[in-house]
Amino acid sequence: MEIVGTHTVNIHPFEVDFTDSITLPLIVNHLLNTAGCHANERGFGIQQLNKQNHTWVLSRLALELNERPKCEDTLRIYTWIESIMRSFTQRNFRFETGDGNIIGYARSIWAMIDTETRHPISLTGQGIENYLHQMDCPIERPGKILVPEQTSLSSFVVAYSDLDINKHMNSAKYVEHIIDTLPIEAMEKASPFRYEIEYIEECFWNEEITIEKAEISESEYIITLKKKDGSIACKSRLLFK
Amino acid sequence: MEIVGTHTVNIHPFEVDFTDSITLPLIVNHLLNTAGCHANERGFGIQQLNKQNHTWVLSRLALELNERPKCEDTLRIYTWIESIMRSFTQRNFRFETGDGNIIGYARSIWAMIDTETRHPISLTGQGIENYLHQMDCPIERPGKILVPEQTSLSSFVVAYSDLDINKHMNSAKYVEHIIDTLPIEAMEKASPFRYEIEYIEECFWNEEITIEKAEISESEYIITLKKKDGSIACKSRLLFK
Repeated sequence: MEIVGTHTVNIHPFEVDFTDSITLPLIVNHLLNTAGCHANERGFGIQQLNKQNHTWVLSRLALELNERPKCEDTLRIYTWIESIMRSFTQRNFRFETGDGNIIGYARSIWAMIDTETRHPISLTGQGIENYLHQMDCPIERPGKILVPEQTSLSSFVVAYSDLDINKHMNSAKYVEHIIDTLPIEAMEKASPFRYEIEYIEECFWNEEITIEKAEISESEYIITLKKKDGSIACKSRLLFK
Repeated sequence: MEIVGTHTVNIHPFEVDFTDSITLPLIVNHLLNTAGCHANERGFGIQQLNKQNHTWVLSRLALELNERPKCEDTLRIYTWIESIMRSFTQRNFRFETGDGNIIGYARSIWAMIDTETRHPISLTGQGIENYLHQMDCPIERPGKILVPEQTSLSSFVVAYSDLDINKHMNSAKYVEHIIDTLPIEAMEKASPFRYEIEYIEECFWNEEITIEKAEISESEYIITLKKKDGSIACKSRLLFK
């Protein structure tokens, strides 16, 4: 089995927004599937881990893209594991168009947890270290996001369609709820962007989540999802370059 | 170009629900992409029509499936145009697993409209008639859905992520909002089902939509989406067999 995983996506008519470009939540969904297939094919995917009551949870993600490909374009995503710490791995991504033009990169940090106790599992001796790889990924790591004063915008209740196989909110669905709070004009821009998200707490079915936003400038937004008790479920930052 | 279109979908880790089965909204999304690619490849797809200010809108859909395939399964969708009327076409679908096992069928009715006037366009002489085909599709046509007294459930505001290339609500997103109103236990059933939807009015960005539901029995639901003026945007019926 190759060390670097590849996932090829043909962008279909119902995967693009009104600018004919693939949406950011769908790019994140394809990124997650790239990671998921890479792990499944190598024996440490969610489907296999679930049998021993373990699962992967995404902790942080930073994604920089120069463009969002259009309908009928091909998007090729490469993924590799850069490092393994005691309870986290760093997994990177490179995005290319069908003709091999690099359009961006992503960096992510994942933890393996026990699905009963929700505690982290040690990642050593699980065979993951056989797939460590070094490759260029010239974007900044996802860091801590500082949250300024925010305005409370709206709320939603976590629904069936928000859930993934672990019955908690799908990491790409956080992005969907976040992106939906931006002014719609922001999505008309074809400019390069950096998107960063810090997943802090899992969100479960029927939980009420409120969304808060700070507009730092016309090209920078900090958006958080909060639980009913006021705790932060996730923090994110979107920067148009 | 072949008369019948084929679309092969490999079901990825982040496309399944907590029963490890692909969700109904995603099946509808794949169905729409199958139709969209079939039309694009043959010169009458949304991407081409948009250049002359025309577009396709889905009017009715009936879908019967014996099962929802699981992660890493292959779903193969066949599509063909059964008939053309003055301003509607009937397009059918057959669903197979990777090993050729037929798991269901769908029937749909589409209209072509002018994106400025929103009026229907005549479908004769557009080259679509070269792709008419007769093939077995042993499910009932989508009919008029009779709406009994319903309970108002919740509301939502049409967001960026709900929109498609036409900047109106994506037909698969209606299904997502509808399915999210069911008791979560309903999605644990692996039983065969029939899903029917009648699209009546387009929903646009920032519109407030209310959802009403009638539970006819434990295995039959009628769910409608309504606009602020009380007009019905769509009616749907879900029947577990």
